[in-house]
Amino acid sequence: MTATPRPSPGRPRDDQVDHRIADAAVELFGRKGWASFSIEAVARLAGVGKASVYLRWRNKEELLVEALKLRMGRISDVDTGTVRGDLVELVQQLLTLYTGERGQAALRLGIEARGIPGLAERYEDMAQAQILAARAIVRRGIRRGELPENTSVTFLLDAVCGGAMNHALTVPPALGPLTAEAMADYAEHFVDFVLTSVLSGP
Amino acid sequence: MTATPRPSPGRPRDDQVDHRIADAAVELFGRKGWASFSIEAVARLAGVGKASVYLRWRNKEELLVEALKLRMGRISDVDTGTVRGDLVELVQQLLTLYTGERGQAALRLGIEARGIPGLAERYEDMAQAQILAARAIVRRGIRRGELPENTSVTFLLDAVCGGAMNHALTVPPALGPLTAEAMADYAEHFVDFVLTSVLSGP
Repeated sequence: MTATPRPSPGRPRDDQVDHRIADAAVELFGRKGWASFSIEAVARLAGVGKASVYLRWRNKEELLVEALKLRMGRISDVDTGTVRGDLVELVQQLLTLYTGERGQAALRLGIEARGIPGLAERYEDMAQAQILAARAIVRRGIRRGELPENTSVTFLLDAVCGGAMNHALTVPPALGPLTAEAMADYAEHFVDFVLTSVLSGP
Repeated sequence: MTATPRPSPGRPRDDQVDHRIADAAVELFGRKGWASFSIEAVARLAGVGKASVYLRWRNKEELLVEALKLRMGRISDVDTGTVRGDLVELVQQLLTLYTGERGQAALRLGIEARGIPGLAERYEDMAQAQILAARAIVRRGIRRGELPENTSVTFLLDAVCGGAMNHALTVPPALGPLTAEAMADYAEHFVDFVLTSVLSGP
């Protein structure tokens, strides 16, 4: 075990070690889930001593919450100027996230977060923030006259966000990982498919 | 620990105990995932001795695969006579599954199955069977003239199946569980939303 020395007062924390631990936490959570998540296992995976982890985080709940905040990013607000552009960007971000190295952790969060002490509340905040951002895309589209006033935000977002998740989960492994090109192509055509519905609705 | 006596040759296995163990296996997998899945934990949850489990299943891989087969059911083939009816039924089945007591296990399978020895292959078979059943719904719709020839089966199913999953995952817990009535209502209107796209497509 390599132990990181406790920093003297005023000395900045070692960002590299912070990130290594956070990466290990996200990776472990993604691979095994909360039930197998422990400070010890994270320290082992990060190649640091347990003390190095406890120096930074008080317990495993705090570690996971902070690690997700630090390393997982979030679906960023998109505002390309058109509703189609925004939704294509959203689908690409979701496909990239779900099929990337932190994809397992992202998918797991959706089903486990509500049962993890300390994370449940924060997860609801994150989820609400993303839902609000996605709703803003639709609202701007309505304001610009691109979408009808009565567009169902729920249906549109269930179709768009759920479709991206379903696509990431059902690509047969035999086909190999989705390339960036395949994701961009899917995102454009799938968004056009869903928008057709909104634009020709009753 | 209560131990079930080994049945004498020719004596039928005790179905009640089989089901109790299978229920416990599905519940444990749903709550904690594969990384925490063990014969011991399943036996404890089922209130039987480890020997009772080993009497029936050789190892934990076999136990989980069989338990899922026995207790999880599958999205059954639907053939109501119309493509709209079939898709509404499919969305209702998915919402019922994901929000029901075995919902966690079903959602987990989607992200964990490919990493579980012995289950990965069986899961691909199950997933393929369901994809084929869903594709059959769309093909029948095309044959009956309800859907255009060039309908994208992938887009339609990503939107419909993904939408149901997204809806189940994003209902705020504050609203309480989805009622059967709310699921039926959502299924009808969401399917109409997606079908509008197919029917007015280019």
